[in-house]
Amino acid sequence: MNAPLLESQRVRRAIRAGEITGTSRGLAPGFVQCNVAILPKVYAFDFLLYCQRNQRACPVLEVLDPGDPVPHKLAPDADLRTDCARYSVFVDGVRQDDRKDVRALWRDDLVSFLIGSGITFDAALERAGVPTDRHRWVLRTKRPTDPAGPFRGDLIVTMRWLTPAQAITAVQVSSRFPFNHGAPIHIGDPAAIGADLDAPMFGGPVPPLPKELTPVFWACCVTPQAAAENARLPLFIAHAAAHSFITDLPADHLMTA
Amino acid sequence: MNAPLLESQRVRRAIRAGEITGTSRGLAPGFVQCNVAILPKVYAFDFLLYCQRNQRACPVLEVLDPGDPVPHKLAPDADLRTDCARYSVFVDGVRQDDRKDVRALWRDDLVSFLIGSGITFDAALERAGVPTDRHRWVLRTKRPTDPAGPFRGDLIVTMRWLTPAQAITAVQVSSRFPFNHGAPIHIGDPAAIGADLDAPMFGGPVPPLPKELTPVFWACCVTPQAAAENARLPLFIAHAAAHSFITDLPADHLMTA
Repeated sequence: MNAPLLESQRVRRAIRAGEITGTSRGLAPGFVQCNVAILPKVYAFDFLLYCQRNQRACPVLEVLDPGDPVPHKLAPDADLRTDCARYSVFVDGVRQDDRKDVRALWRDDLVSFLIGSGITFDAALERAGVPTDRHRWVLRTKRPTDPAGPFRGDLIVTMRWLTPAQAITAVQVSSRFPFNHGAPIHIGDPAAIGADLDAPMFGGPVPPLPKELTPVFWACCVTPQAAAENARLPLFIAHAAAHSFITDLPADHLMTA
Repeated sequence: MNAPLLESQRVRRAIRAGEITGTSRGLAPGFVQCNVAILPKVYAFDFLLYCQRNQRACPVLEVLDPGDPVPHKLAPDADLRTDCARYSVFVDGVRQDDRKDVRALWRDDLVSFLIGSGITFDAALERAGVPTDRHRWVLRTKRPTDPAGPFRGDLIVTMRWLTPAQAITAVQVSSRFPFNHGAPIHIGDPAAIGADLDAPMFGGPVPPLPKELTPVFWACCVTPQAAAENARLPLFIAHAAAHSFITDLPADHLMTA
């Protein structure tokens, strides 16, 4: 008799079979979701170095050996070429049509990176009384990241609007996830980090700030994807936005403890 | 008028001038000390990957660009070729005579890694009432690390003997340094991780355990150096044991907060 499937395994199978084609948001709650970055080995050192130099924004959770599409640590029965519902593909920095799988593009020299998504600590925030389903945007800033080789760009952040009490709790809770963005990088005035409120990358238009709420900012894992796009590599494959890879790692396992 | 020198800068200058030739232990207290690993660029991706895969043991704090001996982030006026009091040099895995500086060996393709040393949170432990000057050893274990390319080996740990109350405090304090080994990896029976009490790497012979004390184990930054030695690279340069590189980074800056 086989062990019962984890919810993460069940969802990945449904994605692979084409039964789930939409966003990964809300799927397999409690399991770590990862952003995917796949690039030729010749660029892998510089990209890993970029992630190390900008650790808050780029929490690397697993790097696969060249040509290997199986994340042996985080989801040993998965295949990174098929198990995201949608992929974005960039050739010489130019975005191609999205794909449902990338097996046709696979090469022995492709190195895959799994980078922890900020969604991971949403459940812990919710349990601590911090709402995560509204007042949440992804914004560009004017704060440069530390470059490595061709990888460079400004920091991208997640902004949440919280009450002062929620903001304090959110600092405490997120600090317990140092390998998944960790504590906020800024609280208060968006202009202090050059956050672009006029053109959010996700979350819709930003309304006027209610006076009882405070903006709180975390480094966001869209940062390394943007840096890889900026690098205009001959080939760069990523999950499509909001179509992250779902791992078998329980989110609470990323806590310091 | 020049700004007054930091104690870390003063000590590095004395080392560079040959006025300090001994261990770095106890020098410039409060500043982060780093282990140094210098190797040809062709091995740099695998070594960085090894560190990522064994993050607790290998907290990479800065990676320099190929050929650059200046740690621009952690000590911008330093030179890694001269500012450790003693270097160990390995050629094809064979240890050569130690050197006082490695300028004669320098090449444009050498990549330098600075890896946080466990000494870093000693001061925070002391302030919290946990003694760090005795009952402290570095031990080999039988727990394999996750390999990358030619880099592999068993985990090396720091063992401290603490009272139960000190052990609890030590978990709390060290958890606040997730990017510098973080929380212990084990408490209690040394045999559970195959810790070799018969041949400590540092700390002298291990006496019988007093019954009021408990062994507490942290991943140790000697681990990546041993993995690099195991790889038998054509050239590998490290600080000599206990002759670490002293940075300008205050140790408390490595805290989560």
